[in-house]
Amino acid sequence: MPTAFLGPRGTFSEEAALAHVGDDGELVPFDSFAALVAAVETGAATEAVLPIENSIEGGVSGTLDLLIHETPLRIKAEIVLPIRHFLVAPPGVALGDVRSVSSKPEALAQCRHFLDRHLPGVHQEAALSTAAAVRDAALGTDPTRAGIGPQRAAELYGGQILAEDIQDVRTNLTRFVVLAVEDHPPTGDDKTSLAFTTEADVPGSLHAVLGEFASESLQLTKIESRPTKEWLGVYVFLIDLHGHRLDPAVARVVERLRVRCATLKIFGSYPRFPLESLRGLVAPRPPTT
Amino acid sequence: MPTAFLGPRGTFSEEAALAHVGDDGELVPFDSFAALVAAVETGAATEAVLPIENSIEGGVSGTLDLLIHETPLRIKAEIVLPIRHFLVAPPGVALGDVRSVSSKPEALAQCRHFLDRHLPGVHQEAALSTAAAVRDAALGTDPTRAGIGPQRAAELYGGQILAEDIQDVRTNLTRFVVLAVEDHPPTGDDKTSLAFTTEADVPGSLHAVLGEFASESLQLTKIESRPTKEWLGVYVFLIDLHGHRLDPAVARVVERLRVRCATLKIFGSYPRFPLESLRGLVAPRPPTT
Repeated sequence: MPTAFLGPRGTFSEEAALAHVGDDGELVPFDSFAALVAAVETGAATEAVLPIENSIEGGVSGTLDLLIHETPLRIKAEIVLPIRHFLVAPPGVALGDVRSVSSKPEALAQCRHFLDRHLPGVHQEAALSTAAAVRDAALGTDPTRAGIGPQRAAELYGGQILAEDIQDVRTNLTRFVVLAVEDHPPTGDDKTSLAFTTEADVPGSLHAVLGEFASESLQLTKIESRPTKEWLGVYVFLIDLHGHRLDPAVARVVERLRVRCATLKIFGSYPRFPLESLRGLVAPRPPTT
Repeated sequence: MPTAFLGPRGTFSEEAALAHVGDDGELVPFDSFAALVAAVETGAATEAVLPIENSIEGGVSGTLDLLIHETPLRIKAEIVLPIRHFLVAPPGVALGDVRSVSSKPEALAQCRHFLDRHLPGVHQEAALSTAAAVRDAALGTDPTRAGIGPQRAAELYGGQILAEDIQDVRTNLTRFVVLAVEDHPPTGDDKTSLAFTTEADVPGSLHAVLGEFASESLQLTKIESRPTKEWLGVYVFLIDLHGHRLDPAVARVVERLRVRCATLKIFGSYPRFPLESLRGLVAPRPPTT
């Protein structure tokens, strides 16, 4: 059975899914986060790959909100992918011909310095995905229209790459999670993700919960808040920590959180991605003058 | 001198700015968050109104990142606005004629239930702002194209409202901040916003910082994290609390944070918006069957 990813083909999500399943894996695109999760819940796919966090933009609220509010699926793996943006046009077009640039608003924002310097005053258009922006530019009949997106999309749709690595910040990393019915058995180098709410309007209640993690010397690798959607200023807290939920220290903290928190949901335990392996890949380039 | 807001005219930001300055105030639109802040920094405007948080979508990263990384401006006021979405088309068009709907992707997502129920299968298009989506639909020559956005935009551009209050969740509130060179003197019912980073890789360091607030019984009304943009998993923490930075208890905590935190930035103190005054406005409506 296949692994589901966020289409269209050519997205960064497909790149991440390929890295996860390898060359022999079977991938199938779906067109929304909700459809990805439904595919696994109904057995049409064994697992789904979703972006959860970017090193510049922060948390991916669609994925976080599905995990918090909607799905019983667990996180069984994480993948970190360097995000490299490419400027793509139909074959035969030069940079000086470009009059409009399309991409997801986030991607346009991530390439602001390049656009200001090399395409000042050029019209910017919103697209629903980076892959769609590149596809529409590559296959389009308007030679003055370019798209910003992944290298894989340029290859798939036969676009011409006018400029590569045009993102402002070289340490642009996106973390993806793989959701499935079960999470992952312990490997000895794992992480656990969970979400909780505290009693409303009790000063210091978050401090008290964090004290439980500190009392077992558990290292937190992420803390984030999301709205509960009930009222402004009421939050769900999301925490990632080193350790597996079956490790004794983690299990002790979880038991205490069940008593202390108003709500608690364990998203799963999974092998830690070796983030340090990417240090070299995304090192700053020397300036090209 | 005018108050700056995020244009085009007809945005929710303009509604918030109008609520802040009153009928006699002077407003001027700018086309990006960075331009708004620059207008105040250079003296072209006295203050700028920016969205900072939504009760469904969470923090507005563009505004948060400007406050964290780029501007010395202070928060001098907050405004909370109920977000009401309207479906708008050219005059004379009926709901059954609509074949495509355009808005910001966030607004389309916020109206998902309405769209699924009343416009199933209709093509959805991304726009750069809700006001632009409504303007282009109202002034456009294509009668099958509708936009989703604020009532004010429909009025400004002469569009016909096909449906009102089409957002899924009635408690859809956006909080705006007003940035200026100086923050606000104490009023007796104030909030303070600040950001800090802790020493990297020290387990429990966030817990220790929150302990400083707890030790003075200060009530936190928001805690959120944003990427530092240096590396995945390294965060800036953002806190809002009850009290003014000139209150003795707040001043004591700030002094201790200056020692304990790796970095600390005070965004300002300002009168608390009476959020409870909106409870009635956004109460759930009876179902319309």
